[in-house]
Amino acid sequence: MKKIGIVTCGGDAPGMNAAIRAIVRVAHARSLKVFGFEEGWKGLMANESKPLTPRSVGGILQLGGTILRTARCPEFARRKSVREAAEVLSLNEIEGLVVIGGNGTFKGALDLSKESDTLIIGIPATIDNDVFGVDETIGFDTAVNTIVTEIDKIRDTAISHERLFIVEVMGRTRGFLALTAGITAGAEVILVPEIKCRMENIFQTLKENSMKGKKSGIIIAAEGVGDTRGLAKEIEEHTQSEVRLSVIGYAQRGGSPTARSRLLASLYGNKAVELLLNEQGNKIVGLQNGRMSTISLEESCAKEKPLDLGLLALANILAT
Amino acid sequence: MKKIGIVTCGGDAPGMNAAIRAIVRVAHARSLKVFGFEEGWKGLMANESKPLTPRSVGGILQLGGTILRTARCPEFARRKSVREAAEVLSLNEIEGLVVIGGNGTFKGALDLSKESDTLIIGIPATIDNDVFGVDETIGFDTAVNTIVTEIDKIRDTAISHERLFIVEVMGRTRGFLALTAGITAGAEVILVPEIKCRMENIFQTLKENSMKGKKSGIIIAAEGVGDTRGLAKEIEEHTQSEVRLSVIGYAQRGGSPTARSRLLASLYGNKAVELLLNEQGNKIVGLQNGRMSTISLEESCAKEKPLDLGLLALANILAT
Amino acid sequence: MKKIGIVTCGGDAPGMNAAIRAIVRVAHARSLKVFGFEEGWKGLMANESKPLTPRSVGGILQLGGTILRTARCPEFARRKSVREAAEVLSLNEIEGLVVIGGNGTFKGALDLSKESDTLIIGIPATIDNDVFGVDETIGFDTAVNTIVTEIDKIRDTAISHERLFIVEVMGRTRGFLALTAGITAGAEVILVPEIKCRMENIFQTLKENSMKGKKSGIIIAAEGVGDTRGLAKEIEEHTQSEVRLSVIGYAQRGGSPTARSRLLASLYGNKAVELLLNEQGNKIVGLQNGRMSTISLEESCAKEKPLDLGLLALANILAT
Amino acid sequence: MKKIGIVTCGGDAPGMNAAIRAIVRVAHARSLKVFGFEEGWKGLMANESKPLTPRSVGGILQLGGTILRTARCPEFARRKSVREAAEVLSLNEIEGLVVIGGNGTFKGALDLSKESDTLIIGIPATIDNDVFGVDETIGFDTAVNTIVTEIDKIRDTAISHERLFIVEVMGRTRGFLALTAGITAGAEVILVPEIKCRMENIFQTLKENSMKGKKSGIIIAAEGVGDTRGLAKEIEEHTQSEVRLSVIGYAQRGGSPTARSRLLASLYGNKAVELLLNEQGNKIVGLQNGRMSTISLEESCAKEKPLDLGLLALANILAT
Repeated sequence: MKKIGIVTCGGDAPGMNAAIRAIVRVAHARSLKVFGFEEGWKGLMANESKPLTPRSVGGILQLGGTILRTARCPEFARRKSVREAAEVLSLNEIEGLVVIGGNGTFKGALDLSKESDTLIIGIPATIDNDVFGVDETIGFDTAVNTIVTEIDKIRDTAISHERLFIVEVMGRTRGFLALTAGITAGAEVILVPEIKCRMENIFQTLKENSMKGKKSGIIIAAEGVGDTRGLAKEIEEHTQSEVRLSVIGYAQRGGSPTARSRLLASLYGNKAVELLLNEQGNKIVGLQNGRMSTISLEESCAKEKPLDLGLLALANILAT
Repeated sequence: MKKIGIVTCGGDAPGMNAAIRAIVRVAHARSLKVFGFEEGWKGLMANESKPLTPRSVGGILQLGGTILRTARCPEFARRKSVREAAEVLSLNEIEGLVVIGGNGTFKGALDLSKESDTLIIGIPATIDNDVFGVDETIGFDTAVNTIVTEIDKIRDTAISHERLFIVEVMGRTRGFLALTAGITAGAEVILVPEIKCRMENIFQTLKENSMKGKKSGIIIAAEGVGDTRGLAKEIEEHTQSEVRLSVIGYAQRGGSPTARSRLLASLYGNKAVELLLNEQGNKIVGLQNGRMSTISLEESCAKEKPLDLGLLALANILAT
Repeated sequence: MKKIGIVTCGGDAPGMNAAIRAIVRVAHARSLKVFGFEEGWKGLMANESKPLTPRSVGGILQLGGTILRTARCPEFARRKSVREAAEVLSLNEIEGLVVIGGNGTFKGALDLSKESDTLIIGIPATIDNDVFGVDETIGFDTAVNTIVTEIDKIRDTAISHERLFIVEVMGRTRGFLALTAGITAGAEVILVPEIKCRMENIFQTLKENSMKGKKSGIIIAAEGVGDTRGLAKEIEEHTQSEVRLSVIGYAQRGGSPTARSRLLASLYGNKAVELLLNEQGNKIVGLQNGRMSTISLEESCAKEKPLDLGLLALANILAT
Repeated sequence: MKKIGIVTCGGDAPGMNAAIRAIVRVAHARSLKVFGFEEGWKGLMANESKPLTPRSVGGILQLGGTILRTARCPEFARRKSVREAAEVLSLNEIEGLVVIGGNGTFKGALDLSKESDTLIIGIPATIDNDVFGVDETIGFDTAVNTIVTEIDKIRDTAISHERLFIVEVMGRTRGFLALTAGITAGAEVILVPEIKCRMENIFQTLKENSMKGKKSGIIIAAEGVGDTRGLAKEIEEHTQSEVRLSVIGYAQRGGSPTARSRLLASLYGNKAVELLLNEQGNKIVGLQNGRMSTISLEESCAKEKPLDLGLLALANILAT
């Protein structure tokens, strides 16, 4: 192996740059050349790349976002597009490609692996933490901390006004962010898309809390649970007291990565290069039960990572 | 003067606790007793208070919110309610009352001053910074920093995706937060309620930026400028590229106060007690041109604090 | 089991309060009464305790330090003291005791377990992360992030002045903090007590960096590696350029716990109560390879947690 | 005026980059060309410069340090060196020079103004805030907040251990940082170089605090007050209880500038360009009593900015 490529796809996640830095520097130490394709699959298809060297990735460890930029690329669902990308890889003699992104990205990577001889390694980087076979994705820890810091601030106002707040966080289909942020921020109620929310249960919890003297509270809801504005209204009508909604926006996806997101990025980047040097491909790297491991692209794409329902039960006990 | 009261009203602001601490400890040093009325005007009307001592305000300097809690109190617009409050003050022999809040609160304080012999001093504490005659209110600096930190994070994603973001901040009628956060976060466009936003101007700026190679950008908008979701759509249609909206929520009102918000709280609290000891009332304390000063409740309530249009012009130049 | 106790010993760590909250609320849900002994072993020996209820541990999740306070207690090395503590436990009919602390604390807990019928469970909480049999202690992640944030700031000055900085972090005998903070902050050199530092190696690295165009740099050193001031001088003399020393102090031990430290605290607190309810004792709870597990007090105290030398090697590659 | 230069000298301060950005973009809007000299006076003497454009200063608003780098330059005290710099300015037809730095830098600027026809404007940027005639220097607010955040964390440990901490902050000759950080962090004792510290007063305060039930405490000391390690020992011996020392290091000088430091940088940069366009020089720009103003280099260098002793007295009352 002499030359490898890197591409960052889908939504950005804090720590993507740390992963790029790790790949480039480990590759350099192993005498590999590295090229970065820009703007995700789009740049790969268009053969837009630049060489990456240990110096060109200096000073990016602590930066959010991705220096390679990223973009959504719906046309990559078509075989024609995937073949274009495969040709670019072949043309540039890219023997290994590290694809940094989330679930959707890995589906594209799997398609690409079927059209190309280039070995493909996926590095899981998404704030959603929804990659099967991987304990924790790069960026998840940062996003959780951003949310928790925000809820800590909202709680000041909640307590001062003895008021209920609904905090909506990202997660269109999965509740990992809502659950982990919810338990660590001490949210009174956690709503995730995986579990149907029953209004009577929420009312019951709020009533019990009120009887215990808890006059303020935080309900954290993944965006996938539905209309949070409507939820706020419904609770207002039922409890006869004001409910405020705060939608935590794109700041969740940005910011300087936490130490943990940087550490995962370093470990995952290192492992990716190591696999390529061992002529292995079509795998996703990641911690499994705390140990560096791999899972096949195919298996990870085919399965859904389960939400830890025990953690949800614990969160409810801790919020009593 | 032997006994004074404190009440926090309206929306909470970071540094209200620092102000309470300052009043209590300065008052104690001058042999005054201090009572804190709870939940704003509501608690004053209901005679719900507790004694505050140097020890009972220990450890609150760095806390957001207000330990006295606060509440909206629409009924305080009625003379009957104001008289009830006046009676409570008289009953408790409260000779001086420090009212901590914003514009709306001071209108109530002015009404109260007309029904009561108690000397009333206002301490401006609101993230809106819209109190006439006062350079800066307690909490404003904290809220600005919270917004700027958030925009710094959003910018990571904006650059990575080469995308435009609209960031909506608080400010139903005034643009102080949007303007100061906008210039310090380097927003490409700043929209404030004081100035009618013309779509063609926005389009022109975005077009010029695009030609300069600025492919991402931040538009900061005070909530008072109107429907930001509609604005996002309109820009999307015109520019043919995605625009995202992030509404910065109640975290703006919370959080540990910055050093500056704590400093203002300390200075304002001290000045308030000093005025009462000099038998002065019906004034709002505050920095004016950088110096501790006062303005009459009446004048401050009657006038509107002007927005610094020069600063807005400078912001536009700096965002080129 | 009807009644359990909690005690926090040794140096404080961010997340101790989150652990106390978790224990109390889980215990309450299982109908256990909880008493908190104050100031570590000292308070246990002196029978100074207070009941802890779900409400009395409200609002502490996000606070650094420990509401039970802590203190060094050299006299607990003597059997007489340990017996006194055992008697207090017996007197109060404390059937289970959760001991929150680090290595030194667990040695005391082991001694106590030999003199008392009370079941003892250890919860590892120390920024040093040096407890054998436990992936990560409560507080470690917070301390690492505090250090990394600080180094990110120091790097601004290092780059602006093209200067070398030595950053000393805690760790009298172990290098976990220095290593993890070093790799995630991108330190050019990492010095840990476990590995003898050879000056010629440092000089060699600095020389190579200089030739690569890296004119500034960060050397992170655990306090246990020895005289960092002398090290700074030695490097100054050898490189003929200024070297600055920054000793990161007690802020490492404080601050609001990160989401991860809070999560571990919640998991460990829950597991501790569960073990006691199953009449198990003399164990330390903790993640092992990412899964909740236990290790006997005896084994953990007898063995030394190994430092991950592979991580150190990776750090050196990443800093090229 | 067609061409101006910028140079950053002395210690770096957060917001220097924001000032560079403001100068460049305002100058561009007024059709001025801008050159940046690198590494302070050294680069000016050596004629090492680069053109600065609105695009080349993009993305630096939020960065600590200075992209022009800085260096100490003792040889600039000699007339020969100053003349070299003057010749470089003349050679490059630099009609106006903006010098960003602190007191020492302005002494050099004053010398330079006497040897050169180039108009010189000083922008005060130093965490020390010790420039006469200027309310607040760029970077001061950021450094104060960094210290306060750190002390907030140290207080967790102080309270948990009921222990006294001495926190040493920067300030070799002046106590602005110690005083403002001290009052806003609620330090029990504030020691500044301007006022001789008497041990009996410290002992008295600590004794009184202890009697009030304050068992922990923070003493903040500017480095200029002398041997803080010795101070810690002396207090330990007198109070018979442990005292810890935390020296807050170079992180004080780095980090992303606060909104206020960015705002001052924007205002000062704008004003500097405006003055040059009006053919004015040999002045320092800055807020005076809250309003943009100027002071002559000569006067500012000749006088010493007074420390606000009233603020120190208030701090002592607030810490009761």
